[in-house]
Amino acid sequence: MKEDALIFGAAYYEEYLPEDRLERDMEWMAEAGMNTIRIAEATWSVHEPRDGEFDFSHVTRVIEAAARHGLRVIVGTPTYAIPPWLAALDPEILGGNPYGPRQNMDITNPTYRRYAGRVIRELVSRTAGYSNVIGYQIDNETKHYGVHTPRVVAGFRDWLRRRFGTIQALNDAYGLYHWSNSAASFEELPDPAGAVNGSYACAFEEYRRGLAAEFLQWQSGLVSERKREDQFITHNFDFAWRFFGAPGQQEGYSYGVQPDINHYDAAKAVDVMGTDIYCPGADALTGQEIAFGGDSIRSLKKAPYLVLESQAQGFTGWLPYPGQLRLMALSHIASGARGVMYWHWHSIHNGIESYWKGILSHDGERGIVYDEVKQIGAELKRLTPELRGLKKRNRIALIVSPEALHALRYFPTDKDLSYNDVALRFYAALYALNLECDVLYDRETDWSAYNLLVFPQLYCCNEDLIGRVRAFVASGGTVLASCRSFVTDEHLKIRHDRQPHGLTDVFGMHYSCFTKETGCAWIELLDPDTAQVVKRCQNPYWEKYASVTRNAFGKGFAWYLGVIPEKELLEECLARSCADAGIPVPEFHWPLVCREAVAADGCKIRFFLNYSSQPRTICVGGMGSGTGKELLTGKSVSQGESLTLSDWGAAVMKEAAD
Amino acid sequence: MKEDALIFGAAYYEEYLPEDRLERDMEWMAEAGMNTIRIAEATWSVHEPRDGEFDFSHVTRVIEAAARHGLRVIVGTPTYAIPPWLAALDPEILGGNPYGPRQNMDITNPTYRRYAGRVIRELVSRTAGYSNVIGYQIDNETKHYGVHTPRVVAGFRDWLRRRFGTIQALNDAYGLYHWSNSAASFEELPDPAGAVNGSYACAFEEYRRGLAAEFLQWQSGLVSERKREDQFITHNFDFAWRFFGAPGQQEGYSYGVQPDINHYDAAKAVDVMGTDIYCPGADALTGQEIAFGGDSIRSLKKAPYLVLESQAQGFTGWLPYPGQLRLMALSHIASGARGVMYWHWHSIHNGIESYWKGILSHDGERGIVYDEVKQIGAELKRLTPELRGLKKRNRIALIVSPEALHALRYFPTDKDLSYNDVALRFYAALYALNLECDVLYDRETDWSAYNLLVFPQLYCCNEDLIGRVRAFVASGGTVLASCRSFVTDEHLKIRHDRQPHGLTDVFGMHYSCFTKETGCAWIELLDPDTAQVVKRCQNPYWEKYASVTRNAFGKGFAWYLGVIPEKELLEECLARSCADAGIPVPEFHWPLVCREAVAADGCKIRFFLNYSSQPRTICVGGMGSGTGKELLTGKSVSQGESLTLSDWGAAVMKEAAD
Amino acid sequence: MKEDALIFGAAYYEEYLPEDRLERDMEWMAEAGMNTIRIAEATWSVHEPRDGEFDFSHVTRVIEAAARHGLRVIVGTPTYAIPPWLAALDPEILGGNPYGPRQNMDITNPTYRRYAGRVIRELVSRTAGYSNVIGYQIDNETKHYGVHTPRVVAGFRDWLRRRFGTIQALNDAYGLYHWSNSAASFEELPDPAGAVNGSYACAFEEYRRGLAAEFLQWQSGLVSERKREDQFITHNFDFAWRFFGAPGQQEGYSYGVQPDINHYDAAKAVDVMGTDIYCPGADALTGQEIAFGGDSIRSLKKAPYLVLESQAQGFTGWLPYPGQLRLMALSHIASGARGVMYWHWHSIHNGIESYWKGILSHDGERGIVYDEVKQIGAELKRLTPELRGLKKRNRIALIVSPEALHALRYFPTDKDLSYNDVALRFYAALYALNLECDVLYDRETDWSAYNLLVFPQLYCCNEDLIGRVRAFVASGGTVLASCRSFVTDEHLKIRHDRQPHGLTDVFGMHYSCFTKETGCAWIELLDPDTAQVVKRCQNPYWEKYASVTRNAFGKGFAWYLGVIPEKELLEECLARSCADAGIPVPEFHWPLVCREAVAADGCKIRFFLNYSSQPRTICVGGMGSGTGKELLTGKSVSQGESLTLSDWGAAVMKEAAD
Repeated sequence: MKEDALIFGAAYYEEYLPEDRLERDMEWMAEAGMNTIRIAEATWSVHEPRDGEFDFSHVTRVIEAAARHGLRVIVGTPTYAIPPWLAALDPEILGGNPYGPRQNMDITNPTYRRYAGRVIRELVSRTAGYSNVIGYQIDNETKHYGVHTPRVVAGFRDWLRRRFGTIQALNDAYGLYHWSNSAASFEELPDPAGAVNGSYACAFEEYRRGLAAEFLQWQSGLVSERKREDQFITHNFDFAWRFFGAPGQQEGYSYGVQPDINHYDAAKAVDVMGTDIYCPGADALTGQEIAFGGDSIRSLKKAPYLVLESQAQGFTGWLPYPGQLRLMALSHIASGARGVMYWHWHSIHNGIESYWKGILSHDGERGIVYDEVKQIGAELKRLTPELRGLKKRNRIALIVSPEALHALRYFPTDKDLSYNDVALRFYAALYALNLECDVLYDRETDWSAYNLLVFPQLYCCNEDLIGRVRAFVASGGTVLASCRSFVTDEHLKIRHDRQPHGLTDVFGMHYSCFTKETGCAWIELLDPDTAQVVKRCQNPYWEKYASVTRNAFGKGFAWYLGVIPEKELLEECLARSCADAGIPVPEFHWPLVCREAVAADGCKIRFFLNYSSQPRTICVGGMGSGTGKELLTGKSVSQGESLTLSDWGAAVMKEAAD
Repeated sequence: MKEDALIFGAAYYEEYLPEDRLERDMEWMAEAGMNTIRIAEATWSVHEPRDGEFDFSHVTRVIEAAARHGLRVIVGTPTYAIPPWLAALDPEILGGNPYGPRQNMDITNPTYRRYAGRVIRELVSRTAGYSNVIGYQIDNETKHYGVHTPRVVAGFRDWLRRRFGTIQALNDAYGLYHWSNSAASFEELPDPAGAVNGSYACAFEEYRRGLAAEFLQWQSGLVSERKREDQFITHNFDFAWRFFGAPGQQEGYSYGVQPDINHYDAAKAVDVMGTDIYCPGADALTGQEIAFGGDSIRSLKKAPYLVLESQAQGFTGWLPYPGQLRLMALSHIASGARGVMYWHWHSIHNGIESYWKGILSHDGERGIVYDEVKQIGAELKRLTPELRGLKKRNRIALIVSPEALHALRYFPTDKDLSYNDVALRFYAALYALNLECDVLYDRETDWSAYNLLVFPQLYCCNEDLIGRVRAFVASGGTVLASCRSFVTDEHLKIRHDRQPHGLTDVFGMHYSCFTKETGCAWIELLDPDTAQVVKRCQNPYWEKYASVTRNAFGKGFAWYLGVIPEKELLEECLARSCADAGIPVPEFHWPLVCREAVAADGCKIRFFLNYSSQPRTICVGGMGSGTGKELLTGKSVSQGESLTLSDWGAAVMKEAAD
Repeated sequence: MKEDALIFGAAYYEEYLPEDRLERDMEWMAEAGMNTIRIAEATWSVHEPRDGEFDFSHVTRVIEAAARHGLRVIVGTPTYAIPPWLAALDPEILGGNPYGPRQNMDITNPTYRRYAGRVIRELVSRTAGYSNVIGYQIDNETKHYGVHTPRVVAGFRDWLRRRFGTIQALNDAYGLYHWSNSAASFEELPDPAGAVNGSYACAFEEYRRGLAAEFLQWQSGLVSERKREDQFITHNFDFAWRFFGAPGQQEGYSYGVQPDINHYDAAKAVDVMGTDIYCPGADALTGQEIAFGGDSIRSLKKAPYLVLESQAQGFTGWLPYPGQLRLMALSHIASGARGVMYWHWHSIHNGIESYWKGILSHDGERGIVYDEVKQIGAELKRLTPELRGLKKRNRIALIVSPEALHALRYFPTDKDLSYNDVALRFYAALYALNLECDVLYDRETDWSAYNLLVFPQLYCCNEDLIGRVRAFVASGGTVLASCRSFVTDEHLKIRHDRQPHGLTDVFGMHYSCFTKETGCAWIELLDPDTAQVVKRCQNPYWEKYASVTRNAFGKGFAWYLGVIPEKELLEECLARSCADAGIPVPEFHWPLVCREAVAADGCKIRFFLNYSSQPRTICVGGMGSGTGKELLTGKSVSQGESLTLSDWGAAVMKEAAD
């Protein structure tokens, strides 16, 4: 992927348009400073209206028109929504699911694979030769879709056999004796549909996350056979989705760790990470989803990534206030994105996504959203030399785990508090304090870049991670863990020695009892051994126990929060643990967001993002050194000088490296 | 149907009674001034306990007893609840639904039709000869019951083929390309069970509404073959139902447009419209459901209608306060009903309707409810000469659409705001202002009687309607439309030109963006061209846009509300649009309700209905002219004189025509 | 069952433990004063890992270790959770339910019965010879599990045939004519799955409750064949369960009458009643569940009972405050329990019950809960001579009915008010007033011991019960009934004469209308004949009616509450009806609980239980006579002397008999 420009563009679906407006659309895109479109990933039934009858005219016609207007194209494989004839050909592909929705097929079904493989090969063959096709997106927002066929169950049994060797080992590891669930052979293992054993149920989830990752690997192989070498492969990774609309509707937004595919594994299938991030808009716009999503996706390859989808008008109620689209675009760049693509160019006139609005409204005219996109396009084009190839250097990592996410569905902290609720509460506190972090999967073993590791509810982990935490602190790192961390092994067996397992000396405390109270979802009664009591339990009956402890261990420090902390307590603990870790806490607090990166030339780039409807004046020089340049206005700003950000406004300072 | 009397009576189910009390019941009915009963529509298993073994003794016995007491009879066909033997005979009749509930059979099933046809013919043959049988009710509260068999899906495909001719035309119209749903042939069209395409899903609903209407037409034909010429055919049309009780219970009340049969088509199957209307009682009694239901049913044939069911004690919590039953009865008459029948005479001692109480409680004694019914019976008998044959002459019409209702389930305005919520909010404002209206289906093309048309969320409509709106305003009419009106064509394709499609000049504005805010479910940002801004958007970011506009076009006026207005704003806009339309706004406001009609002799009849627990004194002459007569008391009331209505009281003024 | 000691112990599952700690556990139990464990009832797959391959080593090993430490053993039959191989052997055993959960099999399935019978015989054969095995628990918390197979439906039809003889009699009794449900033969009766007829649906529930009781009788027979004569048979009866956790989780507590097995019948299968009782803990601990559960189970055989399960740490949030475990243990004894067993010794490390914590936490160490258990153990050992063989002599009975419970699911008083909500509201008022009662099933015919009978919503009953109520009052008893009592016959047919049926003279009033109002779920408009009006209806429209009446009839009194009373009104009526019944109302009120029993030596034992976090000083002599002894401290307390109970504290007074 050439680093010549920031990517700026939109998804484009000529197939959906009620009139021929291709030339006009391309012209307006170019006028708006766009340079890239993404096409084709949703419309298999158009590309192959009948079994084996291919018609890629909509694809090639758009690629050619794009070329005429200087636009590059990312072509998507259309496998996430199957045509009616394919569903009819083998009912097992949908396995009882209704035809109509996307992403409800069995991605392991051989028929599906055969036909998906064929259309992928045809599509790549037909498009790889176009010089403006710069890459391929394989499938879209892939997950395992709850696939649960006899074949998948059989595969799961094989996977368990490989993992455990003997059924006795599995019975022991999962504690299947409970309620008489222990099996006498792997063949006898029951369908996990009714599993009440969390170890067994979550292992099935893990297995299926692997199926989704394998599917992407398979697509990647197919595309690689036919694409040009300079064309990249990407995928549009998405996050958990918090619904807020009417039942059956799509309204929602990106909300934490994805439960149904393991991003850590799946990332290996692509050259360039891509993602979509949606967030509440208008008064509810905070920037947090953009920051979390970016920090997550960037950390998987520690490299710039594509924002393949970002909201234009989005759902009803998100219509961006003046300035918000630009603020969001700069926020993506500030997280390390290689640019921004919108979903999507034009609004759709039929179907369930009709009110997920694009840059153009249904009238197809250029309106207020187009105008702001055009302004962004011009600014990004002008700033490309400064903003391309930005590097992030964070000293804090937040450790996440889809295994813990699923485990805590079976062993919930509270009925109203999911894993992602807690993980995002921790992320939100870091974000509010402008403490930038990487978001790492627990399987990531290289912690050498970090001074502070934050563990929100890392409920399950293996001995290796325990050992690494110990070594990290011993050698001078700081960790901060929440309650319900390090509780079980990798098979969700609760450790049967002192909690926190293997780390009682590191944290300098132990506990064996926990409870909850009104307004407090979880309270571990921490019994300090060597640890300092930061906060005591407030209930008079438990006041001899601590709810927050801090311990010096080796050359480092270990913080433990026996509760799910409220915002104030959490920010306080994070700030103090930063002090232990030698990380300065910025003077700014959300809604004034400050994100930092290193430019290609080694200079420091600081993005100041005002996530509020009030103008804010800041003293820029307070953090940097010497004179810098505000890139959006081009003005020099010397140390101690103040800058005023308008409501939903932004500034981008280029400064000498520290 | 002879116009000799106001119909007054009740449904009567001798089959349900735990003791023989037929003679006593008939005697008590006659004593209460009743003249009509409705029987037989629920008890097929009694009429035909075994296949082909008919026993209509309960029917004939009741008809004969009724005759002895001067009571006329409406006989219902018993097809809405099938006997166990029929369910066992062909399991496809229930198609997987459990046996037990009524109205869950496949009304298109040939076996069902064969047996239903036979019992109808037998019943009519056996009863048509009785001179006191005045008419037949075909089936009861017919809907399509969600019928979804392969036969129905096949019929739907045929219907689509007839509608579109080519699959290409259908793919285009419904935009099936989205998510790869486009088909290569009509045969390939998938089962709509899983449809995510709103056009396709709603077309299936439309098709099934048609099946229900066809079923009534079929029954009507059967009955016509055997009934006497002077006997009428009616049907008990019901409305959407808002549940409020425990799950699995029936508690609810009539709530807006019926989604599952098209009243406009179905009305063609009957000679005389009939309906049931239930409403919250006691403190929650407002009269609105009676008014809406009456205005709807009356407007379908522009003729008097039967209230075939009206609550006596109704559900627990509705026990009428003294005076309320009389108030309700007069309200039905005031809407143009030919009288009132109760559901039902006696309360039931077994089964799910046991707590839907009749005139008599379970003890079978004459209690407080009977006493008030008797008072009403006497009054209606006395006033029959004045109140029979009343005509309504409304100048306002509210336009409703089951197509829009279903479309807005797929494209909801807000998760807590259904089509009927909005339609009834508009109706409620008219009702509160005592602005009487007809309620018209959008397919009704004759608007010549009206000066003001009100369009709440007429989301979808064809070009013809657009043209008629234009013509109506141009020639001097006034229209008032809410947001989300005129958005799509008849196939739910959102128009791809300026909104409101085809009417931007009529309304003198256009819009392309919309959003929502806390407390405001929908906000279109109206951009006035020629229109006057009645109200601006309140959000500072959007204040250059209007939320309410008024435009002079041709000889008329066009109002547009870009929001779902709160009550105050709505009443204000309606009152002002009435001024534009030359319609005077009455001085009274709910809970003082005034409904007006024209008597057979041309005099004006005004019903004053006090829907409150406070007595109210009104100056009657303020509206009428000269001296009138209050019919209930028989007192003359001259202009300017005041009348006092007791709590839940009523007055009926007969006055000279204006 | 030997009366030599109070039972004190815990359930023990060696099969679940991740390490061998059997000796240590037994040692620690003995050290804690325990004398009994319960084993084996959950782990069939361990006892019989393959069809016919038995391995009871975990059972015998634990029995032998227990013997070494002086612990006795109750062995449970492991039939409530089937092994995977059995599920695979005959899919009909699960009948479509998933494998994994316990208690979802068809307990009438012949295959299940064959294999269950075999494992029971093997288990008893292998263990009956151990001298420290004192008894057997048959199955566990048995219910019918919603079994609904064709075989069960066929059995139901046969049961109906035996009950009614002719189909006509059944049609009449159940009123199946409604909605055409009447059948022409028993064979034709439809599957009750879709029943809308409450009589029919509730009869099916009654039939299935009988299946569960029959299943226990069958197990009892099997165990009897092989056990020693001195070994008892018990069962762990549980109550309705109110869930409060996340969906799919078990969190809940004992909440009133069990709907899915008839305790009255099932009690005949055992020698000694056993039960499990769980209740909210910490700040939410009230003692009410312990009292209700104990009063219910004790009353079934009018004999001491085993508390086979009682919470140790229980669910997260129930961690007992210091003193609470001891308070709970004494409360069980005060209700007539023969001692207390905990569920369970050690916490579990895998599976859905991992957070239902035992005496030991997951770390397996002796912590604060163990310490309090040990204190209780020592106290119970010391007080055994005084507290064993306690007898209860209550003069009040609360009458409950699973038939009414189910009937009111079909005919609910309010969507937010179940039968158990109301029954427990009445129980709670008695409990708060320290008016001890027996809890009797309505089928219990011996009321000779009582002076006051309380009927909360005894919706359905036969003529016999009506007659007994009449006789009870006539001969000097007092009854207090709530609204919706005596409404229907035993087939749920609402009586068609004056309500309350057959008792209008006893209550001195009648009613035919009822309604509800905001904040008032049900209001019968009581029309007093001879009764005194205790309270009038408050709605001005109904103020001539009473909501509470009291009537002198014969030598007794009859109270009727036409409403579901709030706490204050209910306590007032109960206190006044006690006065009528000659029962003194204690001066103490909850949270100070006083429970009374008669010791083996005829002395009076009074338990004073402080269910609050405030210490309380009471004048003990106020109730007793002369000098008594406080058993826990061993101090003499003379009349009029005061005692101070610490927060969550208790005192046990031994006093001379009255």
